[in-house]
Amino acid sequence: MIRVTVWNEYCHEQEEERIRKVYPNGIHNAIKDFLGANDDIQVTTATLYDENKQLRENAGITDELLANTDVMFWWGHVRHGEVPDEIAIKVKEAVLSGMGIVFLHSAHHSKPFKMLMGTTCNLGWRESDDKERLWILDHNHPIMAGIEGRYFELEGEETYTEPFGVPDPDKLLLIGWYNGGEVFRSGCIWRRENGKVFYFQPGHESYPTFYNPTVQKILTNAARWVAPVCPRMPLECPWVARLEEK
Amino acid sequence: MIRVTVWNEYCHEQEEERIRKVYPNGIHNAIKDFLGANDDIQVTTATLYDENKQLRENAGITDELLANTDVMFWWGHVRHGEVPDEIAIKVKEAVLSGMGIVFLHSAHHSKPFKMLMGTTCNLGWRESDDKERLWILDHNHPIMAGIEGRYFELEGEETYTEPFGVPDPDKLLLIGWYNGGEVFRSGCIWRRENGKVFYFQPGHESYPTFYNPTVQKILTNAARWVAPVCPRMPLECPWVARLEEK
Amino acid sequence: MIRVTVWNEYCHEQEEERIRKVYPNGIHNAIKDFLGANDDIQVTTATLYDENKQLRENAGITDELLANTDVMFWWGHVRHGEVPDEIAIKVKEAVLSGMGIVFLHSAHHSKPFKMLMGTTCNLGWRESDDKERLWILDHNHPIMAGIEGRYFELEGEETYTEPFGVPDPDKLLLIGWYNGGEVFRSGCIWRRENGKVFYFQPGHESYPTFYNPTVQKILTNAARWVAPVCPRMPLECPWVARLEEK
Amino acid sequence: MIRVTVWNEYCHEQEEERIRKVYPNGIHNAIKDFLGANDDIQVTTATLYDENKQLRENAGITDELLANTDVMFWWGHVRHGEVPDEIAIKVKEAVLSGMGIVFLHSAHHSKPFKMLMGTTCNLGWRESDDKERLWILDHNHPIMAGIEGRYFELEGEETYTEPFGVPDPDKLLLIGWYNGGEVFRSGCIWRRENGKVFYFQPGHESYPTFYNPTVQKILTNAARWVAPVCPRMPLECPWVARLEEK
Repeated sequence: MIRVTVWNEYCHEQEEERIRKVYPNGIHNAIKDFLGANDDIQVTTATLYDENKQLRENAGITDELLANTDVMFWWGHVRHGEVPDEIAIKVKEAVLSGMGIVFLHSAHHSKPFKMLMGTTCNLGWRESDDKERLWILDHNHPIMAGIEGRYFELEGEETYTEPFGVPDPDKLLLIGWYNGGEVFRSGCIWRRENGKVFYFQPGHESYPTFYNPTVQKILTNAARWVAPVCPRMPLECPWVARLEEK
Repeated sequence: MIRVTVWNEYCHEQEEERIRKVYPNGIHNAIKDFLGANDDIQVTTATLYDENKQLRENAGITDELLANTDVMFWWGHVRHGEVPDEIAIKVKEAVLSGMGIVFLHSAHHSKPFKMLMGTTCNLGWRESDDKERLWILDHNHPIMAGIEGRYFELEGEETYTEPFGVPDPDKLLLIGWYNGGEVFRSGCIWRRENGKVFYFQPGHESYPTFYNPTVQKILTNAARWVAPVCPRMPLECPWVARLEEK
Repeated sequence: MIRVTVWNEYCHEQEEERIRKVYPNGIHNAIKDFLGANDDIQVTTATLYDENKQLRENAGITDELLANTDVMFWWGHVRHGEVPDEIAIKVKEAVLSGMGIVFLHSAHHSKPFKMLMGTTCNLGWRESDDKERLWILDHNHPIMAGIEGRYFELEGEETYTEPFGVPDPDKLLLIGWYNGGEVFRSGCIWRRENGKVFYFQPGHESYPTFYNPTVQKILTNAARWVAPVCPRMPLECPWVARLEEK
Repeated sequence: MIRVTVWNEYCHEQEEERIRKVYPNGIHNAIKDFLGANDDIQVTTATLYDENKQLRENAGITDELLANTDVMFWWGHVRHGEVPDEIAIKVKEAVLSGMGIVFLHSAHHSKPFKMLMGTTCNLGWRESDDKERLWILDHNHPIMAGIEGRYFELEGEETYTEPFGVPDPDKLLLIGWYNGGEVFRSGCIWRRENGKVFYFQPGHESYPTFYNPTVQKILTNAARWVAPVCPRMPLECPWVARLEEK
């Protein structure tokens, strides 16, 4: 059983009527719905803002939650700064010790992602209802399992563009094409010590991206792929310390 | 002094009036002109067909030529099969021992490239006068030195598209966007033993791509970058053999 | 069910008494024994020489066998040259279309491996009963699942040493240390189009390496990891051809 | 002209007689001496502690210094914590905007390196006067230019060992072998946005490593290789922001 925690800012959906129409129960619950429909995945949610629009203490993330999470999904956009540094560090350290993580869309600017990448994670963007066509570079990667065809399309998405200020990914899975003239490395994998990281570009709050069956298949595959295959390793494990004398 | 050999099939330019209009002296001489304008680069050309449309023996490539070439440029398209296997193997082995090589456009299906990659090097293509916009992923790579802006454009090029059947490049420098809806890894680097390989997607015979100043700058940078920094290493060098006894 | 074919030269074991003592039923059957003990793996064997020391036609490999193999293990050493080129090409093409493959020890010089790598695959070697200590670089990679500790040891192995004439691996999993003073990239992964390739350095015929429980665990993990997750893709699939007109 | 700044903690050399004997003018000046002997390199030094053993304000690093540094060398060991966070962030940001950086030996635990890597950068270590033999994986990489032979040796060095808690390097150049039984990825390259990073494992304060001609050659090559080839790019450059409307 893979224990997934879906974390969401949960602001747009509560603050803007047009977004609430798309995700009436919040983006986190839309993701929970399709991930949780799998027998091998058990989903919890956590949000920065609660259902009364109040900022949760510690961004809704406790040590216990992290200790019991195999895979975290992270959706954030306009309130990255309200996640306390010490919580972002705890998320980062959970990843380094083995927790898998999937960063969605504008989470490219979240604190944990930037800390794990070591770069600005900047990019260019435009909201103009571009069509995005996502080209698949490796059909035999587990995250692409079951996705047929050379590409799949999203009728509308926010446009992101290169240069994407991240370390070159260990593996590039998807390149996004936008009819406005842009391209983006829309599916990227990095290892960070014992933790696997997947970044997935689509998922702007105003589009029904998380209801798209191909997106759901990719994110379900990703949950399984980033899930750790070894026990969580303490950051101060005895290997990474003075060796015994010869 | 970098000794460059530009190899070209030299068929289209002799057989088709509309191509001859674009490259009246052959693609090889168009490339020679801009590379040779640099003080540190000395250019020779070699062609599969001579100026009387006769197939040259050994594809115009001798052992002596290879021994005296630091960097080879390779343009081929419709006559890949007329390059003898043993010549393709010699080119491959020159690369493995240290000669740099730049494969241009449809040279993705040339014998030396396929031998070096170990894959089909297949791709999708279409000739429809698409505009190509090439996005730069790393402005601080020597091959991109002096290229300003996030991208540059070619008003017309043959459309190539993913999936490109090559090993994941050691470094991806350019992603091509086409207005028809395609993307392509248009600038890729691989190391093959002691040799550096650069693949550059633009350069269809019917477009004036090799007169484009940005393309010329990139290919000049590439000549310098793939040039070896160590002596040519014999394939049967003493390192790669039985070690002396302890 | 993963359909594995273990291919072996099967010469040393029949020709040398001291090797037969180590692998009385051949290396292929030693590998079959531990792989086949898993419910999800079904093992066939194929050998270059039959049990009467006669060279098999087509190296014992038929089109039907390849079509029904998800994962091939390849052990070869002194008779690489007796595998017909056309059979090596068929193995390579099966890999490109999706078949996983594990190359063992001296298979670094086998024809399919060299064709897939595009390089000489040369290395330095010495037979001096060195101890090999294999350091694990990524405990959370599926091929290392269940392997504890920073390293594991083999009391005796043939010494292989850098530089190893291969493309830089997509992922380096193991570095071998030898007490004689050498190091080697002993566990390497490459993707070749739709096929996953794992090279594992230990496995010299004179040592009981394939009875080592850690080695068995790694190779079992490897069988599962290189197994394809997408259908076998024809090399001339419609994607990699002229696109339909716009 | 490449403007290099060599930064050093400068503690061991002032506090311990046995270290002062090895580096009487400090490690920074030992490095300055050989780098500065090249016509194309101009060297400045900066230290955490001044020559009166007083902690310098801002770790001796000013905005002006960073703005005028093409390449920084960083040697630190026991006082990583005394480099203020805001200074470490400035160094990191200078790298992201284009400054090259070479981290030496125990600088693996320095703040700028950990920030750039996003991981713990932990490793195992032992001080036991092991011999280190450094195997060269790519003789045609500019950082290895002019280094002959398969390996070079240091009679004594601190032992470092895998697993090294860093992202898989973009390029692995050196593997260190220690007679005590360890291996280490002793020469690693990463890109971090517009900045090139080289980590070099040798250089413990008690050994005369920085007087070794091969080490000097490698570090001189490294200075040239990490030096930027494009102008310093502001972190908030116009590309990485809202795109103009279509």
